[in-house]
Amino acid sequence: MNTTESPAPLDFWFDFSSPYGYLLSEKIDAVAARYGRKVRWHPILLGIVFKATGSAPLTLQNPAKAAYSLHDFARSARFMGIPFRQPSQFPLATQNAARAYYWLHDQDCSLARQFAHATFRALYVDDRDISSPDTVLNIAENLGVNRASLAAALQSPEIKTKLKDEVDLAIQAGVFGSPHVVIDGEAFFGADRLPQIEKWLETGGF
Amino acid sequence: MNTTESPAPLDFWFDFSSPYGYLLSEKIDAVAARYGRKVRWHPILLGIVFKATGSAPLTLQNPAKAAYSLHDFARSARFMGIPFRQPSQFPLATQNAARAYYWLHDQDCSLARQFAHATFRALYVDDRDISSPDTVLNIAENLGVNRASLAAALQSPEIKTKLKDEVDLAIQAGVFGSPHVVIDGEAFFGADRLPQIEKWLETGGF
Repeated sequence: MNTTESPAPLDFWFDFSSPYGYLLSEKIDAVAARYGRKVRWHPILLGIVFKATGSAPLTLQNPAKAAYSLHDFARSARFMGIPFRQPSQFPLATQNAARAYYWLHDQDCSLARQFAHATFRALYVDDRDISSPDTVLNIAENLGVNRASLAAALQSPEIKTKLKDEVDLAIQAGVFGSPHVVIDGEAFFGADRLPQIEKWLETGGF
Repeated sequence: MNTTESPAPLDFWFDFSSPYGYLLSEKIDAVAARYGRKVRWHPILLGIVFKATGSAPLTLQNPAKAAYSLHDFARSARFMGIPFRQPSQFPLATQNAARAYYWLHDQDCSLARQFAHATFRALYVDDRDISSPDTVLNIAENLGVNRASLAAALQSPEIKTKLKDEVDLAIQAGVFGSPHVVIDGEAFFGADRLPQIEKWLETGGF
């Protein structure tokens, strides 16, 4: 419950393997900040969401939509002025990256944000295999994180439960894809809803 | 083949029962005209496209996506400044409207455009059942079309073949949903791609 004068933060749900999630991750904090808002980031596992909701990744749907989507990822990135390269492995498993995020967040939310940006960019700029625990540990170590502590944390039941809980929370919140942003109860799906998100923040609803 | 100096027209594929198709129909001609371009409208039957590509309407997918989509149709309309009311019957069959469009287009392409706007607005502003031949004939008659001639045309094998050919052409062109716009070979899916369409027209590609 928000008992102070400051407005509630936005909720930003995404999977680290979601291209449109990456595109929005590069913009959402700055847009929110222009209207005095913070953003709570929630990496989730879209595979579990898709299983629960009976959906599938864009590139594993029909061939026409898959071909269009691959083309649109890169074009939308150029349109938004964001570096982008289609990863050679796609989609890929992101539980290690998401678990690392939540473990870091418990200690230092600003460091967790840096880690999230570095992880998205590792995948979508440098084509690194972020499904691998080693890559995740390398990214974190590069930000000053103790590698052994994080390696142990990735195996802990607590962090596995934390991620599972976040995915359950997402499904309960009506999340069916990535990215999904909620502002004061109003949901916006897709990086292409950024202009609507901005207008909503500016006007308080339209 | 374009043998003159004037640039090629845009192709605009849509189903008359597509809400995002309606939203784009209210904007696409004016945007194209700003860059000296015309638009070729192609009403198609999304049901056949979905069957061919293994897809489904947004509101018949999972409940979370269906609920979001219904909300987003109306919000996107407000965002774009377009009158919108969710039809009580949705989605609905549009072969009569599409056949009427092509028959009118053979005689007077400007009248066909007026008919297309009137048909979309009949569904999305006045909640009229455009699946009914009577409604389609009423809309056309109101634009000065001879009712009996159009009624006969709607039953003709020629017009049924024409619509079937357009749907086949759409599938061959990679259309997998509505609206789908093609500019000089570049495809844009969704009313939310209008800013990219405009930038593409302005810059010749980005």
